Amino acid sequence: MRRLLALAAGVLLAAPTLAAEGGVHVDPIGTVALELAVILVAAKLGGEVASRAGQPAVLGELLAGVVLGNLDLLGFRAVAAIPADPAVDVLASLGVIVLLFEVGLESTVAEMLRVGLSSLLVAVIGVAVPFLLGWGVGALLLPEASPYVHAFLGATLSATSVGITARVLQDLGRSRSAEARVILGAAVIDDVLGLVVLAVVSGAVAAADAGRAMSAGAIAAIVAKAGAFLVGALVLGVRFSPRLFHLASRLHTRGVLLALGLASCFALSWLSGAIGLAPIVGAFAAGLVLEELHYRDFVSRGEHGLEELIQPIAGFLVPVFFVVMGMRTDLRAFGDVRALGLAAALTAAAIVGKQACALGVLGRGVDRIAVGIGMIPRGEVGLIFANVGLSLHLGGQPVLGADAYSAIVIVVILTTVVTPPALRWSLGRLAR
Amino acid sequence: MRRLLALAAGVLLAAPTLAAEGGVHVDPIGTVALELAVILVAAKLGGEVASRAGQPAVLGELLAGVVLGNLDLLGFRAVAAIPADPAVDVLASLGVIVLLFEVGLESTVAEMLRVGLSSLLVAVIGVAVPFLLGWGVGALLLPEASPYVHAFLGATLSATSVGITARVLQDLGRSRSAEARVILGAAVIDDVLGLVVLAVVSGAVAAADAGRAMSAGAIAAIVAKAGAFLVGALVLGVRFSPRLFHLASRLHTRGVLLALGLASCFALSWLSGAIGLAPIVGAFAAGLVLEELHYRDFVSRGEHGLEELIQPIAGFLVPVFFVVMGMRTDLRAFGDVRALGLAAALTAAAIVGKQACALGVLGRGVDRIAVGIGMIPRGEVGLIFANVGLSLHLGGQPVLGADAYSAIVIVVILTTVVTPPALRWSLGRLAR
Repeated sequence: MRRLLALAAGVLLAAPTLAAEGGVHVDPIGTVALELAVILVAAKLGGEVASRAGQPAVLGELLAGVVLGNLDLLGFRAVAAIPADPAVDVLASLGVIVLLFEVGLESTVAEMLRVGLSSLLVAVIGVAVPFLLGWGVGALLLPEASPYVHAFLGATLSATSVGITARVLQDLGRSRSAEARVILGAAVIDDVLGLVVLAVVSGAVAAADAGRAMSAGAIAAIVAKAGAFLVGALVLGVRFSPRLFHLASRLHTRGVLLALGLASCFALSWLSGAIGLAPIVGAFAAGLVLEELHYRDFVSRGEHGLEELIQPIAGFLVPVFFVVMGMRTDLRAFGDVRALGLAAALTAAAIVGKQACALGVLGRGVDRIAVGIGMIPRGEVGLIFANVGLSLHLGGQPVLGADAYSAIVIVVILTTVVTPPALRWSLGRLAR
Repeated sequence: MRRLLALAAGVLLAAPTLAAEGGVHVDPIGTVALELAVILVAAKLGGEVASRAGQPAVLGELLAGVVLGNLDLLGFRAVAAIPADPAVDVLASLGVIVLLFEVGLESTVAEMLRVGLSSLLVAVIGVAVPFLLGWGVGALLLPEASPYVHAFLGATLSATSVGITARVLQDLGRSRSAEARVILGAAVIDDVLGLVVLAVVSGAVAAADAGRAMSAGAIAAIVAKAGAFLVGALVLGVRFSPRLFHLASRLHTRGVLLALGLASCFALSWLSGAIGLAPIVGAFAAGLVLEELHYRDFVSRGEHGLEELIQPIAGFLVPVFFVVMGMRTDLRAFGDVRALGLAAALTAAAIVGKQACALGVLGRGVDRIAVGIGMIPRGEVGLIFANVGLSLHLGGQPVLGADAYSAIVIVVILTTVVTPPALRWSLGRLAR
C-alpha cells in the first residue's frame, strides 16, 4: 500500500517534468491525456485517504485537487497549468452535468413533487436568510461602502451549488433518500431564485450607476423563462419520453439507449443554459424525467439499464470536475489578511443562513439538520456571482473589491470542504 | 419508425437555429452539450440506416457526419461549425483513443506475438508498395514536378489509419479474430514505419531545399525512440501491471479499476504522442498489456471487468470521432476537376498497394484478402502527411499544391468509405 502511494506520487511528480523537458513535438491530445491520467490517479489516492479517514471520497478528490493546484506555491509549476486547459475544463463541466443526470435518474418527477412544497420552502428560506445575513455582514464590516455593495455580498451567499451535496449523498449511498429529494429539489428552485436575485441586484447596481430606475419587465422575463423551462421540460418530458424511447427501441443498431439518454441530458443542459439557468439544472431535469419504465423495451431484451450505463462515464468524468474544482481554489486567498475577517463573518453567515432551511421541511421522517447542511456548499455559483461583482462598476469602482473577492473565494473553499464531513455526520447521527 | 426519423431530423435542423436566434448569454458548455446531442442522434440514425442496409454501423456514422458537415453547401451553416469546436475535437480524439484501448483489451501481448511475423511483413509490404505506387502515379501524372514531390505523394499513401478497421471488426463481432490481430499488429508497426517515411521524405525535401544532405542520425533517433517505446511499454507493462493492479485492489474507494485502467491508457497515449507516434498506438499498447488476469482481484469481489466498464465510455465518445471525421470531409474536393484524375489514380494506388499485404500473411487460417482490405483506410494519418506537404517548401513552392491536397482528401474519403462494406463482404465470404 505504502509502496503504491510512493510510486504513484513519484509518477505524478515526474511525468509533467518529463513532458516539459522532452522538447519534441507533443500532440495536443497527448497533453490532455497526460493531464487526465494525473487527475484520475490523484482523485483515487485522495478518495482513498478520505475513505480511510471515514470521510466521503469526494472530500479527498477536492483536497487532492487543492494540493495539486497549489504545488506552484512550493515552486513546482508543471501541474498548475491543468485547470487552465480548456479541454480539461470542458471535461470537468461535462462531469458535473453527467453527475446531476445520474442523480436525477435515481428519482422520478412524481417523487420530487411529493416533497415539492418542502423543497420550495427550503429554497426560499435558503436564499432569503443568507442574502439578508450577507447584507448585514457587509453593512457591519464595510460601513463606508454603498448599500448596493452590501446587497451584492448578500447575493453571492444566496445560491447553493448542488454538485458537492449530490456526490456526498451518492458516496454515502443516500441519494434516493427523502433528504436527497428535498435538497435536490430545493437546489433546482434555488438556482432559479439565485438567477433572479443576481438579475435584480446587478440590475439595480447598473441602474444606480447610470442614475436611472431598473426594469421590472426584464426581471419578470427571466422568472417567466425559468419557470416555463422547468414546467415545460418536466411536463413535456413525462408526456413524450416514454413514446420516444419506445420508438427508439425499434432501432437495430447498438448503443441506442445510452446515446438517446445522453442526448436528452445534453439537449436539456443546453436549453437551461441558453435561458440563463445553470446547465446542470437541465441535466437534472432530464434525469428526473427518464424512468426505468420508459426504456423497459431495451432492458427486457437484455441490454443494461441507463443508470448502469451512465456509471462508468460518471466514474471517468466526475472526478475530473472535483479535482479541477480543488485545483482552482487559490490558497493565497488565505494570505490576504484584510480579507480574513470579512471571510470569517461571511462564512458564518453562509453556513448559519442555510441552517434556517431546516424550518422549511414539512412533515415527518426527513432529517431537517441534514437538509440544512446539504444546502451549505456555494462552489462555482458563488464564484460566478463574485466575478459579476468584479465586472460591475458603481461610481468608477468595481462593486466587489479585491478583498471582498478573496473573502468570497474563502467562503467557497470553506463551505465546500466543510459539507462532506458535516453531512456524513448528520446522516450517520441517527444510525439508520 | 418513420415518425421518429422525421422528429429527430426536425430537432437536428431546428436546434442550432434556435440557439443562434436566442440572443441570450449561452454558457459555453451548453453549446458543447448541444453539439454532442446532435452528434449522438445523427450517429445513431446513420448507424441505423447502415445496419438496415446490412453495413457496419460505423459507415452510417461517417456518412451522417458527411451529410451534417456539408449542409453548408445547401446554405445551412449552423451545424457546420461543430468540427471546428476545439471541445468537440478533444472529445473525438479521446474517442479514438478509447476505441483503440478497448480493442487492445480484447487481445493480449502473447496473442499478438504469435502473429508478430505476419504483422511485421504485412506492415512492411503495406508501407513499401503504396509508397512506390504513389511515387509512380506522381511521376506519370505530374512529370514536370520534382522527384521529391513524387516521393511525398507516395509517402502520404503509406500509413494505414486503423480506427475504421478496428471499429468495423467490432461492429461485425470479429475483433478477437486472427485477422484482427494481424491487422492491428501491422497497423502499429505501420505507424512506426510511416513516421520514419515521413521523417525521411520531409528531411530529404528540407535538405534539398537548403542544398545540403539530410541527417541519418536524426532518422536513426526516431526509429530508436519508437522501437524503445513499443518494446519498453510491452515488456515493462507485462512485467509490472499485474503487480500494480494487485496493489491497487487493496484500495477501498470506488471506481479504482476504471480510473487506473484509463490512467494507464492515457499515460501511454501521451508517451507515444510525445515521442512522435500517434497517441492511439500508446492506447492500443495499454489495452494489450492489461489482461483480465491482472484485475481478477476486482472482478472476484463482484466489480465489473475493465472491458465492460470501458464499453459505455466508448459508446459515448467513439461516435463523436466518426461523425466528426465525416463532418471534416469536404465534398467540395470532388468539385476540383483538375484533382479528380490524380485522385482516381492515387486511390487506385492506395487500394491496390495495400492488397499486396496479403502476401505477408504467414501460415493458414487467416483470411488474406480481409487483411489486405483491413489495411486500406488512410484517414487522419494521410491528412497529417498532406498538411506537412502543404507547409514544406521546395524552391519557393509548397511540395504539395492545392490540387494534390484535394486529391489526397479524396483518397482519404474513398479509402475510408470503401472499407466497411468491403471488409464486411470479405469476412462474410466464407460464411464462418
